[in-house]
Amino acid sequence: MSKILVFGHQNPDTDAIGSSYAFAELSRLRGLEGAEVVALGEVNEETAFALDYFGVTAPRIVTSAKAEGADSVILTDHNEFQQSISDIKDVTILGVVDHHRVANFETESPLFMILEPVGSASSIVYRQFKADGHTIPKATAGLLLSGLISDTLLLKSPTTHQTDYKVAEELAALAGVDLETYGLALLKAGTNLATKTPEELIDIDAKTFELNGQAVRVAQVNTVDIPEVLTRQSEIEAAIKTSMAENGYADFVFMITDIVNSNSEILALGANTDKIEAAFDFKLNDNHAFLAGAVSRKKQVVPQLTESYNK
Amino acid sequence: MSKILVFGHQNPDTDAIGSSYAFAELSRLRGLEGAEVVALGEVNEETAFALDYFGVTAPRIVTSAKAEGADSVILTDHNEFQQSISDIKDVTILGVVDHHRVANFETESPLFMILEPVGSASSIVYRQFKADGHTIPKATAGLLLSGLISDTLLLKSPTTHQTDYKVAEELAALAGVDLETYGLALLKAGTNLATKTPEELIDIDAKTFELNGQAVRVAQVNTVDIPEVLTRQSEIEAAIKTSMAENGYADFVFMITDIVNSNSEILALGANTDKIEAAFDFKLNDNHAFLAGAVSRKKQVVPQLTESYNK
Repeated sequence: MSKILVFGHQNPDTDAIGSSYAFAELSRLRGLEGAEVVALGEVNEETAFALDYFGVTAPRIVTSAKAEGADSVILTDHNEFQQSISDIKDVTILGVVDHHRVANFETESPLFMILEPVGSASSIVYRQFKADGHTIPKATAGLLLSGLISDTLLLKSPTTHQTDYKVAEELAALAGVDLETYGLALLKAGTNLATKTPEELIDIDAKTFELNGQAVRVAQVNTVDIPEVLTRQSEIEAAIKTSMAENGYADFVFMITDIVNSNSEILALGANTDKIEAAFDFKLNDNHAFLAGAVSRKKQVVPQLTESYNK
Repeated sequence: MSKILVFGHQNPDTDAIGSSYAFAELSRLRGLEGAEVVALGEVNEETAFALDYFGVTAPRIVTSAKAEGADSVILTDHNEFQQSISDIKDVTILGVVDHHRVANFETESPLFMILEPVGSASSIVYRQFKADGHTIPKATAGLLLSGLISDTLLLKSPTTHQTDYKVAEELAALAGVDLETYGLALLKAGTNLATKTPEELIDIDAKTFELNGQAVRVAQVNTVDIPEVLTRQSEIEAAIKTSMAENGYADFVFMITDIVNSNSEILALGANTDKIEAAFDFKLNDNHAFLAGAVSRKKQVVPQLTESYNK
């Protein structure tokens, strides 16, 4: 029984954890008995709330597949190598379940790869479970539901797919929760920013993108009070500058997202702020600007940055 | 109704044509009314046999999506950009159905992507049809069956997946043919090499791979008589050298595959024949060598070359 590690992206969010937990389970049902869910980092407070609610222990944290004795891996909720396990290029990628663009990804051999432009990787894993005719355990349904709620901000983000509403309903029924009540409680669990250091804030949900050869870090925090987060602007900027210097990011885009009113404040530092301003057609004032209606990094930030950097 | 071009790879083989024809049909059933099958080159004689047998007209040939007024495309049986339409980087890739490794592929946005390590892209399209609960028209089943037979050499290639046997059976029933009889007739239709010019021979089924920065062309012909093909070695080598010079290929690997006995003769020219010899642990004699049991470019040639070039 060879070991197969199943994991979501670095800086795991609730969809990364939920989709990998459930897909590891489905993989075992499909005959890959060695499939084991692991995580590429500590779970955040939102995810911890979901795990606690459904009585699931957080996946153990790994940094290298080879060090775990695993030659094969399965990725969920990501495909770009720089968001994956450190030795991703040295192992066989057996499968990918994801809902992001494809980039910086290649394999030597054919593989299972299921990508759909839907609200969460968890939505896809749910459909795979259903297609196989398996009963979905309550806790698994709960974690998949949490992944979908988290990624779509309770089905309000423009990344929500028309099929996601029904998926959410079905998963809520299987998990035995009221969608709205549980969903708001889950999202609010992730907005407790006051206890976080600035270094933690900029790393809660952060991904690196290669845009026209530049490493651009795009981080996001959820809140119910943007001005409260901005009172900490100077210490956040200091943390960002340190992170840029240490990791070689050309630019850092920090999204402060109001999950109640569905807007974001963008705080941006770096060598290419002109590209960032052009991407969103706004002017940064004291390094930040308001982006009305924007809640989705994937749909409302990264494509716009990609286009602007490539000009 | 915006136009969406659906196509397989350049130098289309029967799986490229069959999978794209059927997936365009399925895409229209899924609501993409503008989905139209096209081809990136002339169909080969094997494919022509299948199209004729099932009364289907060959897809029209296009070289640019933009020139056709299409902003969106769907790829079947390939994903690597150098095997795709000329302006692939300028259009939106809505979907991919494929059974190859992933390389030289990226998108700006999330998409539908279904890859499985099975014998043919046609196998995957068949399962998608089934999952949607649609009745598969006889001609569509026939072309999908032909794609599977062609890519697996009638289920004899090591690329044949355990699920492909049942797929072939079901498709043969839907198409109203006897699997063995039709399969052999189809494969033999593709072995009529005598009427081909050497330039045509090396282009019947050829793909370019980027191996450690080198453009390597790997072409394959099917035959029932390897020595007969080798009587034309000098004119084939001349055609290969011209093609290499014109297209900047570092190396050219020409597989002459015996579909009855499941072996191949490898004819190789170029700057890195040492890498090619190391890949297969053989010595080229007069530029060629026998590779016992090898019939699959994807499984028995390209991974070995990739590893050898990367050393």
